[in-house]
Amino acid sequence: MAQPNPAIVLLSGGLDSATVLAIAQADGFDALALSFRYGQRHAVELEAAREVAAAAQVREHRIVDIDPRVFGGSALTDDIEVPKDRDPTAGDEIPVTYVPARNTIFLSYALAFAEVRGAQDIFIGVNAVDYSGYPDCRPEYIAAFERMANLGTKAAVTGRPVRIHTPLIKLTKVEIIRRGRALGVDYALTRSCYDPDAVGRACGHCDSCQLRLAAFAKLGLTDPAPYIQG
Amino acid sequence: MAQPNPAIVLLSGGLDSATVLAIAQADGFDALALSFRYGQRHAVELEAAREVAAAAQVREHRIVDIDPRVFGGSALTDDIEVPKDRDPTAGDEIPVTYVPARNTIFLSYALAFAEVRGAQDIFIGVNAVDYSGYPDCRPEYIAAFERMANLGTKAAVTGRPVRIHTPLIKLTKVEIIRRGRALGVDYALTRSCYDPDAVGRACGHCDSCQLRLAAFAKLGLTDPAPYIQG
Repeated sequence: MAQPNPAIVLLSGGLDSATVLAIAQADGFDALALSFRYGQRHAVELEAAREVAAAAQVREHRIVDIDPRVFGGSALTDDIEVPKDRDPTAGDEIPVTYVPARNTIFLSYALAFAEVRGAQDIFIGVNAVDYSGYPDCRPEYIAAFERMANLGTKAAVTGRPVRIHTPLIKLTKVEIIRRGRALGVDYALTRSCYDPDAVGRACGHCDSCQLRLAAFAKLGLTDPAPYIQG
Repeated sequence: MAQPNPAIVLLSGGLDSATVLAIAQADGFDALALSFRYGQRHAVELEAAREVAAAAQVREHRIVDIDPRVFGGSALTDDIEVPKDRDPTAGDEIPVTYVPARNTIFLSYALAFAEVRGAQDIFIGVNAVDYSGYPDCRPEYIAAFERMANLGTKAAVTGRPVRIHTPLIKLTKVEIIRRGRALGVDYALTRSCYDPDAVGRACGHCDSCQLRLAAFAKLGLTDPAPYIQG
């Protein structure tokens, strides 16, 4: 049997990236996980990322520190209030939870990690259905990143192109959860909340919680992750 | 008089980026400098960057730490020998001093910094004449990065495009030094060597030193930076 090809999987510890990890492995890749500590309020995500990576038996899980001042100006890193109980899919303005150039920095690190490990494939759980307001979750952005990556790395001369995989980009949250469950993802390990309490329980009211809770409800399931109420 | 527009200038402390800083200021920008500590052997560059930024009276100089393990596999960060006394312009292979995805990571940080500071302009001292072997120094890579940046940030909706300026990209080292001297750059403050000694003196034999020394010589000048011999 051929050795599986390595792939870099961006793993936040949330529901989406845990599903992406399972998809990358199901696609036959030797998934190497990459997470970031960047002063996010929801740092409990990193613990979740560790548990998800361990459960998936990934061979290498790297956590990179990013100076949080880099991202000054987002509700996810600063003392800006996280919006609660609003319609998370309304409007096409850029949400206050948008973090400047975050996916570009994350993908750039993934690109370096891929080059160092000889991987051609990078997986990221961006989604253009629920996160249409985030410019760095759109297909045209991902395509432009991939093109840039292929011009700016050894791929430019080796003929081994870099591929950015976005298996969730067109899926609804319901479809993502269905897919992950079919692949055996344990969503009890994942954390998606933008504003969890000190012991990591989800708030149940931010955009991310609402999207997640609604999807589990539509599937007739109870979200197995811990919430502050109930 | 109108308030000058802010611009992010990537400042390594080398000859090229010091020149770029002077050009950005001469173009009327309020230059904010951005440097990186990434375990480079030539960390003395960072001291040089500080001195160059101070001499240019930049309002803000941010130094960002990057986990050096990210770049594993380059002669600039690892225990790989820096080539000496070879023709630095020969061949079109990727040199061992290429650092995986480095400019992509640097520019991504600059992009976040620009977004946080409301700057539309980013300056980088890449050069496609002397560094033709580095994929991330080529014009087509820079154009692809700029396109990606405009799709992946607020620029996608604000109509205020991000511009990546590469004023040195087609200049020879002689032309760069001539331009910088006309703008008053003090090259005694700059450091370009890939393999300096403990007190920061340049080796005089790596690609970077050779290019620099040859250019000063062609201009009938002595490089004012300190070298190990002489």
